[in-house]
Amino acid sequence: MSYVSPSSGYQPSRRDILRSGAAFGAAATLGMSTGLPAAADESTSPQPARQGRERTMTDVPFEGFDEVRVALIGVGNRGLGQTRRWAAVSKVTAVADIRAARAGSAADRVVAEDPSQPRPALYTDGEEDYLNLLQRDDIDLVYVATPWEWHYPMAKAAMEHGKHVAVELPIAPHLDEIWDLVRTSERTRKHCMLLENVAYFRNEMRALNMAEQGLFGDLLHGSGGYVHDLRDPYMFHGAYYPEGWRRQWHTRMNASHYPMHGLAPVSAAMDVNRGDRFDRLVSITSPAMGLALYREENVPPDHPSWDETYISGDRNTCFIQTTNGRFIRTDHEVTTPHPYTRATTLVGTRGVWSEDNGIYLESLGHTNHAWRAFDDDFAEYDHWLWKDIGGSAEEYGGHGGGDFISIFRTIQLMKLGLTPDIDVYDSAAWCSVVPLSAKSLELGSRAVKVPDFTRGYWEEERPGLTRGRPD
Amino acid sequence: MSYVSPSSGYQPSRRDILRSGAAFGAAATLGMSTGLPAAADESTSPQPARQGRERTMTDVPFEGFDEVRVALIGVGNRGLGQTRRWAAVSKVTAVADIRAARAGSAADRVVAEDPSQPRPALYTDGEEDYLNLLQRDDIDLVYVATPWEWHYPMAKAAMEHGKHVAVELPIAPHLDEIWDLVRTSERTRKHCMLLENVAYFRNEMRALNMAEQGLFGDLLHGSGGYVHDLRDPYMFHGAYYPEGWRRQWHTRMNASHYPMHGLAPVSAAMDVNRGDRFDRLVSITSPAMGLALYREENVPPDHPSWDETYISGDRNTCFIQTTNGRFIRTDHEVTTPHPYTRATTLVGTRGVWSEDNGIYLESLGHTNHAWRAFDDDFAEYDHWLWKDIGGSAEEYGGHGGGDFISIFRTIQLMKLGLTPDIDVYDSAAWCSVVPLSAKSLELGSRAVKVPDFTRGYWEEERPGLTRGRPD
Repeated sequence: MSYVSPSSGYQPSRRDILRSGAAFGAAATLGMSTGLPAAADESTSPQPARQGRERTMTDVPFEGFDEVRVALIGVGNRGLGQTRRWAAVSKVTAVADIRAARAGSAADRVVAEDPSQPRPALYTDGEEDYLNLLQRDDIDLVYVATPWEWHYPMAKAAMEHGKHVAVELPIAPHLDEIWDLVRTSERTRKHCMLLENVAYFRNEMRALNMAEQGLFGDLLHGSGGYVHDLRDPYMFHGAYYPEGWRRQWHTRMNASHYPMHGLAPVSAAMDVNRGDRFDRLVSITSPAMGLALYREENVPPDHPSWDETYISGDRNTCFIQTTNGRFIRTDHEVTTPHPYTRATTLVGTRGVWSEDNGIYLESLGHTNHAWRAFDDDFAEYDHWLWKDIGGSAEEYGGHGGGDFISIFRTIQLMKLGLTPDIDVYDSAAWCSVVPLSAKSLELGSRAVKVPDFTRGYWEEERPGLTRGRPD
Repeated sequence: MSYVSPSSGYQPSRRDILRSGAAFGAAATLGMSTGLPAAADESTSPQPARQGRERTMTDVPFEGFDEVRVALIGVGNRGLGQTRRWAAVSKVTAVADIRAARAGSAADRVVAEDPSQPRPALYTDGEEDYLNLLQRDDIDLVYVATPWEWHYPMAKAAMEHGKHVAVELPIAPHLDEIWDLVRTSERTRKHCMLLENVAYFRNEMRALNMAEQGLFGDLLHGSGGYVHDLRDPYMFHGAYYPEGWRRQWHTRMNASHYPMHGLAPVSAAMDVNRGDRFDRLVSITSPAMGLALYREENVPPDHPSWDETYISGDRNTCFIQTTNGRFIRTDHEVTTPHPYTRATTLVGTRGVWSEDNGIYLESLGHTNHAWRAFDDDFAEYDHWLWKDIGGSAEEYGGHGGGDFISIFRTIQLMKLGLTPDIDVYDSAAWCSVVPLSAKSLELGSRAVKVPDFTRGYWEEERPGLTRGRPD
């Protein structure tokens, strides 16, 4: 909670209290300061030295599995939607959810997808029953798709019970928790991976391939974010977030709550944590008006949201400067009427890719300085994953197939005994933007240092999203 | 020069030395510190108290002219292009340029446009001959379209010689100069106006009208900038900048050199200096690679550019937070292959306008969260200037007619005896982004305070770009 100002109106929920330290003793065992020095904008964020059994996870491959056994924790909107994809490429042995009907639906989907699989065991006895699930010895990977405040304790517990863990965005929204996940991974030798799907989208992978081949020249800057009007039905109308948990984060932190979709592909193109790294972050925000206005005009007076005070600015924008001098802009706006965009761009000395506008390459000639459509003319640059399993991706879907690709690839890496495409250090860096944006805003848009979660290993090249087709 | 770090590779040109203080004694008479305290990111920038005859210009109307007599200083690419438009709405009595042929061409154009006008007097005897032009008593308004380093001394001298002055972008690139222009205007009671044309473009004025009518709700943030590949023919091939002066600014300051085109319409919509004001600025930059790369591959070895070291990052982005908590993003990138855009946006609680993408209004229904074209369907919101003289604007042209409108309007305000749409305080605030961006970068992307050039008058409503049709 150290990144929420006392005056910010933060009201911890019962869950947030439950999991914020008492249950797992995180802050006490972390052995580090939990905040950046308030007086120094350029001071390096505390970086704990490795202790005890902790060693880097940068070079640790998966064990190599003939078959990967997966447990699903959280099968609400997102988790239930992903269930069929997990069942298609792995064996789903257990499911936990506080709603028994949801867990049962997930089990039905597993069997429907692959009738040869036994029906998964169900854990539906309240909020802590996932800890019983983790006692099982037939789980290689845990998938977490619960409300954000549960990602940290679940991911940590999964690793402590000897399981790898793939987490929906973010792995954690607080810096001390992110550090603790890094150290838990290093201590337990288990991988903690953000299951970031946009990095596996067709266009993002194609652009990444083109960047790798030098078609944009030296990359100078990029952008990516999340601009999505979530007010109706997501925030207030319960279809997808029935407990209002995502809305409640707007009462807790004035932050860029969800920057990872843009950061993932741009970071991969810039070799972040593989020759470059996030160095500094500056955040700025607009007023917070959208949610209260929507509630005023659309929400009945007995709705629980009327007890809430929204403190998170409608538009948050961050700059992240890398050690090599590039920068990334990331926008977050989910509480106003606005067409959807991540506004992802990659800009280099030889050309530009823009999610919204198309592509422009000097090598194609200066066509009146006009954008070209990023269409099948550029299909030759498709990533091998899309060339190999694009048909399956379209069949199994999920945001155009990227969801399937990200799950397929996670299982593939585990089976082949390779290192993750997106490891705990990538996950930590991308997610650290959430608490660091809040900290920068508290300091009046002061630049704050981004911790080096790799503690030195960022300078080494190592495989990631850009690696080639396996033999 | 106080905003250029000693290590930045800044090499003052002869001109920059000539006009930086020795000629006009600006720094010595300004009576203020020239930099923000290095240790304090939030300290208020020094604001000189008004002295002697200085009084605010916020409420000072033009005298009211039957006919406005204009002198043109600088008729290179831009000034010569504007000559016909000035001749169409005013009497051009004198022209100065260091190239006699150019001055003669301008005079020809004046007479061609309006044969009833006497041929303007020409001042072509070197760089200081404009001072002789300013001795004339048949000039009400001086128009300055010279290289950037000359805007300040020429604007100051014009006012000291009892003339109003309209200046191409920027009025000055250094903070002490900007302050001196504000104080000179307050002392001489003459207006110093940035001739910002984009604020008068059809779409920008239409969007401004819609903002005034509340169609975007409460404005939250906006953006606008200048992304334009100037390498060929502008920067290196002499067609428009034969002395390479614009390229040379990339050797002097690491800054957002040209942010005004985006700032003008967005500031007008946000009532900047009329109820809100710029409060803080943060700047970030990419590496500076584009110009050196272009030179390496395209410029012959005897070209003077080979003596230059480029220090200004290819992409500069600034955030400006206003006192009311809104923010504006402004991008500058002129040295890489990239389609042209100012990326202007206005975003509020009820809708969005985007120069690149179109318009989205909640009042039109949530059409699958898709952009609508900002086309003739919205013509009812056209500004009265476009309704009244849109035909003339198209005839006289200049960036689609906005250039003509901005000149027409300047002369109209002078004839009607009204206050300027864009006054010295607006001009100062928008142009201050140039030196403040350099200062923020020197401090490691620290937030720096934007001076209140109005010294308190920003809280008062007063007429500006949004005022209605005159009676």
